Amino acid sequence: MRIECIAIGTELLTTRRLDTNSVWLGEQLAGLGLAFHRKTAVGDSREDLAALFREALTRSDLILTTGGLGPTFDDFTKELFAEIMGVELVEDVQSRDDMLAFYAARKRVPPAVNFKQALIPVGAEALRNPVGTAPGVWWQDPPEHPGVRIVMMPGVPREMKRMWEDQVAPRIRPLAGAAVQTLRMVVAGVPESTLDERTREVREAHGHLDWSILASLTQVELLARGPDAAALEAARLAFAPVLGPDLVSLGDGNLEDAILAELSQRGETLAVAESMTGGLLASRLTAIPGASEAFLGGVTVYSVVAKAALLGLDPEWLERVGTVSEACATALAEAVRQRLGATWAIAICGNAGPGTEGGAPLGSVFIGLSGPGGTTVKPITMAGDRVEIQLRASALALDLLRRAISAGR
Amino acid sequence: MRIECIAIGTELLTTRRLDTNSVWLGEQLAGLGLAFHRKTAVGDSREDLAALFREALTRSDLILTTGGLGPTFDDFTKELFAEIMGVELVEDVQSRDDMLAFYAARKRVPPAVNFKQALIPVGAEALRNPVGTAPGVWWQDPPEHPGVRIVMMPGVPREMKRMWEDQVAPRIRPLAGAAVQTLRMVVAGVPESTLDERTREVREAHGHLDWSILASLTQVELLARGPDAAALEAARLAFAPVLGPDLVSLGDGNLEDAILAELSQRGETLAVAESMTGGLLASRLTAIPGASEAFLGGVTVYSVVAKAALLGLDPEWLERVGTVSEACATALAEAVRQRLGATWAIAICGNAGPGTEGGAPLGSVFIGLSGPGGTTVKPITMAGDRVEIQLRASALALDLLRRAISAGR
Repeated sequence: MRIECIAIGTELLTTRRLDTNSVWLGEQLAGLGLAFHRKTAVGDSREDLAALFREALTRSDLILTTGGLGPTFDDFTKELFAEIMGVELVEDVQSRDDMLAFYAARKRVPPAVNFKQALIPVGAEALRNPVGTAPGVWWQDPPEHPGVRIVMMPGVPREMKRMWEDQVAPRIRPLAGAAVQTLRMVVAGVPESTLDERTREVREAHGHLDWSILASLTQVELLARGPDAAALEAARLAFAPVLGPDLVSLGDGNLEDAILAELSQRGETLAVAESMTGGLLASRLTAIPGASEAFLGGVTVYSVVAKAALLGLDPEWLERVGTVSEACATALAEAVRQRLGATWAIAICGNAGPGTEGGAPLGSVFIGLSGPGGTTVKPITMAGDRVEIQLRASALALDLLRRAISAGR
Repeated sequence: MRIECIAIGTELLTTRRLDTNSVWLGEQLAGLGLAFHRKTAVGDSREDLAALFREALTRSDLILTTGGLGPTFDDFTKELFAEIMGVELVEDVQSRDDMLAFYAARKRVPPAVNFKQALIPVGAEALRNPVGTAPGVWWQDPPEHPGVRIVMMPGVPREMKRMWEDQVAPRIRPLAGAAVQTLRMVVAGVPESTLDERTREVREAHGHLDWSILASLTQVELLARGPDAAALEAARLAFAPVLGPDLVSLGDGNLEDAILAELSQRGETLAVAESMTGGLLASRLTAIPGASEAFLGGVTVYSVVAKAALLGLDPEWLERVGTVSEACATALAEAVRQRLGATWAIAICGNAGPGTEGGAPLGSVFIGLSGPGGTTVKPITMAGDRVEIQLRASALALDLLRRAISAGR
């Protein structure tokens, strides 16, 4: 089955808006053993949208659209598909009632523009939206396109996800063939090209699997896909000695999931003291459900005042050693570990720019790690913009902790 | 000029990888008064990629690709374009030397696979990559496609951005016509559809501008584009009374930029105590360059231990009032404000799931705001998944602070 995704909205072409919907849908499809062959983002231009819809109808069996179902002046996904098929839009009574109920529950009256959302192309089926006001559309075998399915979903992620789970996925599942399974190996502390070289031989020995390598600022993923669980398991066994301690985890999680799971299992706890990363490390940990089992919390000591007031560091001493220094990283890690009574503590200080901090050059970072065996500091110089340096430093800190935990230091 | 973006990589179709490159490129183009008419993401499949490249050559004058220039087995952007044009790849001496120098500077030897990166299609021009090993390609008037420009850039954001700024943008700038300017109004505390209704009249009175509305979990943006600065200024003046105190800022920034700028200007400071948001609020603030002028830091009090050790809250009292409560939000805000001597303090406690915390229902959130005029708490129930609730709560907290600052409370 050829599946394509069309994300609609001028904002997707021009501004700081990421198309997270199609990423999520790609994952959902992967779970069904399906995959997009293409994803397109296109603006709220009638002409461009109509051209793309016509193309998609020639090359795909399943077309998933997100966006353009709203009440505002720049929403016209349903209208265009209806036009292409030469049918009218009619009001769907259930959708109209749902919208009225949605507003009534909030003690509001629907703005007049909202009624247009209840219009559905003749021959299509409305998909109810229990968490918003824009119904979706399921259109199977539209005029002159037998075998094609068009699914129009809202652009609001929460509404799209709910609609997919409750109404779209159940209709698509029976169309999926043998499920493709994925072996996902998360690796940290190794550059992508090194990992490529190091694993080439094993990968080629398992060349019947579909391989990809995926590097981000925080980790590298090695993915294998295939229909045969035994083949994936054989690949996993062959990789274990090649990856050694660089292998963070198998399956869905990332570095932070692996660390939290390991700590929880050991009954150990973690505290953090963040200067340069300013809460990013804590935020990455607490984005994981159940983080509170092992993560106690920490401090964002973005100023000398905070370092003194929250962790008792002496401002004069800080002035002398510098807030970007090995001594500062050590003191922060030890102080937060002691205050919270944590098994482990991470401290990050550095200069992510712009400019210099306390005379430290841009990209200069010190990561302190304090645990049952004492405190160590890793000094490192990082390249990139502010947020990249913050991301890299938080990932490196987590990886240092991971290695220390498994070494039992 | 018809411009399209092609982002290459199987990971863009199936996993948790966001295509941030094309978003950034869209913004860069907007600055030149240009825009994509389409963005496509496609996998590392020779067949799909070749089909897309051929299509793009029929409908676009400028084709920007990202990705597929790396050293690994699944990189073949240059090879495919060369194949379509019927030309060979040849080694570019400068690119080879650059790569050798890149590795030498890091005291490493390039893996053998890396040499393939120095190959460039005959008739095209290499774009140097000062921060990585994959050169890009500028290919003007390729065989049988006069007037077309193909630009191949690496997928690594830092490398792509540098290449764009130094080498691609300067070549594209002369092709741009009259620059289009943008009026961007950031609004908080108003649902998208309400904003649509409330602004319709003014928008229609300025209908010669190109309008869009862009809602996220944290704010709504109203964008107007047009070639005439005076027309945009007239629109801005007409909107001021309609948006009133819901208008957060004009121009590039977001809610957090506006708050940090306002605090810095007043010489006031901010501290935060985060339970449910776990560092997200601090992290959003410290992602902004210069945050340290007004943001002192704070605590991530993800456990009772942390609430006690870092802010002196009594565990027995917490047990009695509940860690998700008005009393807890008040105590956290006041304690962190006092400890850091901040002008303002925000505290967030709540239950973002899964499960209940201290008996509080899922989505129950209390936001404490402490300032020169005392402490107030906003109780609210939020829908969504864990990260959505964390995002919404951090945005609402910032908006409450913003309104309090301008009210001088």
